[in-house]
Amino acid sequence: MLELYYAPHTCSLVTHIALEEAGADFELHLVDFAKDEQRGQRYLAINPKARVPALVTAEGILTETPAMVIFVAQTYPEAKLAPLESPYELARVQAVNSYLCSSLQVAHAHRMRGHRWTDEETAIEAMQRFVPRSVADCYEYIEDHIITGPWVMGSSYTVADPYLFTIAQWREDDGVNPNQFPKVIGHRNRMLERPAVAKAIADEVGSTRAVNSDGS
Amino acid sequence: MLELYYAPHTCSLVTHIALEEAGADFELHLVDFAKDEQRGQRYLAINPKARVPALVTAEGILTETPAMVIFVAQTYPEAKLAPLESPYELARVQAVNSYLCSSLQVAHAHRMRGHRWTDEETAIEAMQRFVPRSVADCYEYIEDHIITGPWVMGSSYTVADPYLFTIAQWREDDGVNPNQFPKVIGHRNRMLERPAVAKAIADEVGSTRAVNSDGS
Repeated sequence: MLELYYAPHTCSLVTHIALEEAGADFELHLVDFAKDEQRGQRYLAINPKARVPALVTAEGILTETPAMVIFVAQTYPEAKLAPLESPYELARVQAVNSYLCSSLQVAHAHRMRGHRWTDEETAIEAMQRFVPRSVADCYEYIEDHIITGPWVMGSSYTVADPYLFTIAQWREDDGVNPNQFPKVIGHRNRMLERPAVAKAIADEVGSTRAVNSDGS
Repeated sequence: MLELYYAPHTCSLVTHIALEEAGADFELHLVDFAKDEQRGQRYLAINPKARVPALVTAEGILTETPAMVIFVAQTYPEAKLAPLESPYELARVQAVNSYLCSSLQVAHAHRMRGHRWTDEETAIEAMQRFVPRSVADCYEYIEDHIITGPWVMGSSYTVADPYLFTIAQWREDDGVNPNQFPKVIGHRNRMLERPAVAKAIADEVGSTRAVNSDGS
């Protein structure tokens, strides 16, 4: 059985939704950031990068969302979460995921994770001030050149959908006007109607509450 | 025939090497950064992100190195540039490429491309000061947890090899001590012995010289 290590409000939700969509048999393990568990010896043995997500498979451990979701799509081909039959169409999905990972998510990370790129407080604050612009630039590219609708890649739902959905949840907090990009808003609304998405979110929020109620 | 849009000293070299290794029939098009061609209307019609690389295929245009190199590996399976038969092993390659793209290359980009994340000069300088640390942290992870040797993924050469090689070319300029990570240096030396690598580099440097000799 697959095991997903996750934390609420992080990009581990992407793989979580993909596993739900695939109808996979999997177990969830919360990595409690409030207890700094991602830096504890137990979790470092699973993912030495000290980040979520990590996916334990029968063959070994996988990290990095773009890789994990294609693994899920290939492992459960009947769920049709990626155009596996066409190298070109599959590469288009991977190109979107790569852009989300290395451009949009990186722009977003300059709001809360500026310490990855400087240890000077004034520079971290300068980065934070710029986030609404750099993140909005990414959404402008997504709105104009990626989303064709109803799903990210057009008529077929793919693993690019939970990826965009997850990052776009943070858009308002990144200081981006939610009305500026109607296709992204429309996509969010369609995603929230999917049972797999609703279940994944409920399972994650439930875990957080359980942890909080333990007083941690 | 495939067409690769490239610029010397950028990550377009990754796909260039992969195409050479695959024995692909392809054409090279230089995007002259000195003339700001990446922002010209002609190139923006190919890649609205105004960046290299872009790969023109019979089916359409691809961008984003991790996606492009898996497309090359799948299009030329006889070259065995990725473990296409195993979703898990393929995901391991993709996880490495994703890490190189979204962690190492992003850390590196804070030296020359800080304007992507702030417009304040003092913050850009602060980012630059931190690059030797953030880039070295990535190489430490690569040295300790990724490279098994002789190639990145072990005994088989894959598309992860030109990716690491290309970024690692910039390591000294990023302020990282070249002797600190012997596996990465050993990898570079093995790569330089491959005819496909030597040819790709020679073709790119030749183009640059030709352009310069035109007085541009």
